[in-house]
Amino acid sequence: MEDGLKDIIDDLDSLKRSLPDPSLQASVLQLRLRVENLTRMAKSGPVGRPKVKDMSAEVVDSNPYSRLMALQRMGIVENYERIRDFSVAIVGVGGVGSVAAEMLTRCGIGRLLLYDYDKVELANMNRLFFRPEQAGMTKTDAAVQTLSDINPDVVLESYTFNITTVQGFETFMSSLRNKSFCPSKEGSGVDLVLSCVDNYEARMAVNQACNELNQTWMESGVSEDAVSGHIQLLIPGETACFACAPPLVVASGVDERTLKREGVCAASLPTTMGVVAGLLVQNTLKFLLNFGNVSPYLGYNSLKDFFPTMEMKPNPQCSNAVCLERQKEYVLAKPARDAAAKAKMEAEMSSITECPLHDDNEWNISVVDDNEVHTAGVPSADALPEGLTRELPSADEFEKSLAPGTDASVDDLENLRRQLEALNAD
Amino acid sequence: MEDGLKDIIDDLDSLKRSLPDPSLQASVLQLRLRVENLTRMAKSGPVGRPKVKDMSAEVVDSNPYSRLMALQRMGIVENYERIRDFSVAIVGVGGVGSVAAEMLTRCGIGRLLLYDYDKVELANMNRLFFRPEQAGMTKTDAAVQTLSDINPDVVLESYTFNITTVQGFETFMSSLRNKSFCPSKEGSGVDLVLSCVDNYEARMAVNQACNELNQTWMESGVSEDAVSGHIQLLIPGETACFACAPPLVVASGVDERTLKREGVCAASLPTTMGVVAGLLVQNTLKFLLNFGNVSPYLGYNSLKDFFPTMEMKPNPQCSNAVCLERQKEYVLAKPARDAAAKAKMEAEMSSITECPLHDDNEWNISVVDDNEVHTAGVPSADALPEGLTRELPSADEFEKSLAPGTDASVDDLENLRRQLEALNAD
Repeated sequence: MEDGLKDIIDDLDSLKRSLPDPSLQASVLQLRLRVENLTRMAKSGPVGRPKVKDMSAEVVDSNPYSRLMALQRMGIVENYERIRDFSVAIVGVGGVGSVAAEMLTRCGIGRLLLYDYDKVELANMNRLFFRPEQAGMTKTDAAVQTLSDINPDVVLESYTFNITTVQGFETFMSSLRNKSFCPSKEGSGVDLVLSCVDNYEARMAVNQACNELNQTWMESGVSEDAVSGHIQLLIPGETACFACAPPLVVASGVDERTLKREGVCAASLPTTMGVVAGLLVQNTLKFLLNFGNVSPYLGYNSLKDFFPTMEMKPNPQCSNAVCLERQKEYVLAKPARDAAAKAKMEAEMSSITECPLHDDNEWNISVVDDNEVHTAGVPSADALPEGLTRELPSADEFEKSLAPGTDASVDDLENLRRQLEALNAD
Repeated sequence: MEDGLKDIIDDLDSLKRSLPDPSLQASVLQLRLRVENLTRMAKSGPVGRPKVKDMSAEVVDSNPYSRLMALQRMGIVENYERIRDFSVAIVGVGGVGSVAAEMLTRCGIGRLLLYDYDKVELANMNRLFFRPEQAGMTKTDAAVQTLSDINPDVVLESYTFNITTVQGFETFMSSLRNKSFCPSKEGSGVDLVLSCVDNYEARMAVNQACNELNQTWMESGVSEDAVSGHIQLLIPGETACFACAPPLVVASGVDERTLKREGVCAASLPTTMGVVAGLLVQNTLKFLLNFGNVSPYLGYNSLKDFFPTMEMKPNPQCSNAVCLERQKEYVLAKPARDAAAKAKMEAEMSSITECPLHDDNEWNISVVDDNEVHTAGVPSADALPEGLTRELPSADEFEKSLAPGTDASVDDLENLRRQLEALNAD
């Protein structure tokens, strides 16, 4: 389109030169101005929305933030507008990273740093976000184009280089250290790093950078067969780092770089990648805006719709030297953490005990100690419904009968134990 | 842009009329042709990709289907290209429906039917898919614009009306019955209906239509506080229909239509809606392409990252008369279903027993009956590692000692049981 308009301007110029009459030349000049305006319009792309100064909770069709600010009225988030203060770095703008970037952009995040050195290809069109007409653009340029149209309030920074090269890693580190967006912020210049890369080398680079910067980050991944994925929270020194527990692909000695070479590619699905991006950004929002439980690890097995969770402690034999330093710092800071936790709990307790919780006791509810229930012979939780009896004594009752301090005499118990042993020895 | 180009053409026409020299007039005519070409380009919108006749598995950057066809090589899907034969109807093109439509479009679904009567608003920009410059367009028009650019191979049908009106419901039914896309298909004209609406009335309309057409469908929903959602599979007569188990909002007598009126709106997040759309379309792909387990119900509680599942049988007291008919048909068809299942199992068995599974038995593996293990005193699965002993007999051993047919004499057992009862009675 822009090329076509430029050709027209050139033609108009030569037409103007060949015209004898100055008044005719003037009309051609007028025409030229029109075409120049059109060229500017074509360059600016689709007309999006203007910037919004403050996030408003007003319920009108023209407010892009009304449904997000409603999270406050619903009691989910205390102060949604804080999201404008946060910086999130997304490493890898592929099937997961691009969707994560779009979600954070639509949520009105303050600042997004995007890292990728790859170009958009038609072969990426089976995932969300990129459009066929963007094929050939760098993923970072294409992402900035789309995201700035969607939400001009977000500060977008695009970094088009490979973070696994020596020079790339240096630039990566200094971009994360840059605090110009929020100079008062403690630690690095970003609040969270999201790793959305598709290979081990890049993950190790993110791991190294975050260990060095003492930077909390989240890792994400999708399996080569496209039907499972995971997200993981990594806090240097506190949780396992990426080097603490090497993934299976390395443990089994497979070189994943060979995969692309032989005309073979990994499968991928927009569904799995969309779900993983959604879980990742949901965890990010919970982490930044302080609501719900931030998951330390969440898996997604789409064939069975199974979502395993786990926690991973750091490995004291981790091969990453900075991780070991962070682990040491974390242990040394334990007394301070405990004191802070105790102070917080006491503050909460004192605010609770200021007034009695219930003035009356209409339902005659009294608090009973768990152990008391157990030894006093009150029916336990697995008591049977009326009309049913047990064929064998329940495990609880059996254990109780052998526990010291019950009414059974020691002689009875000794006798019973001997008989059981004799039976088992057969 | 188009208006600007039209003005230029008008100006060129008047310029041409005022020119004395025919050769100059000819150059203006040339210029006019150029502008006309540009106008055609501007009308056709962004240049996407050309249609693709067959899905190829070739691994080249220009193949939009390589990552999907790789699902076959990975052993996940037997015949991915079958996806081109399927028609899916999406009712409600909002936060969940639009993303579901984009996912199916990128997966190369044969035909998509989109139903919505709403317009795009800036207030929708906190969810994925729609762009600010589409504000004011109908959601169906905006969706067709975006989706046809993304994948011109998908047949898109857009229905802009309210399915809960009498006329709307009629048109809805006849559009679902239309078999022109695949005349040989049994049943209705679509393979699956996805309900992505945000209100009870519309869900009941989809339920009524699917019960009448004996059409399998999937329901989806996101909570008003934006932090949980669900998907559900509904097969008329076989599973609960939407009227079999009325949702809480109706049971508690809340009129959800009052919500929008008082300047109050529900909260929503691109994350929750993206995850629900991903789970919904993943379930759709499993259902259509016959892989993995299709989930009958899957919940998503994002605060705890908890994903409840359940199955719901139809309610014999369902208020929906057509549901009761479908239930009757399902029961009557049981002998035929059983016979088909038996025939299938026998066919599989005979193909298995055609040749011995293992010619040799290098590892000396033999099949042992579970009960035999139990009574023969072979260590059970919870045998302890070497060097450890149990303080108390394990539940297995205790049970075994009381089971008839073991080596213990009946007298011993009677004696033991009496003693246990005496102990438990205390």
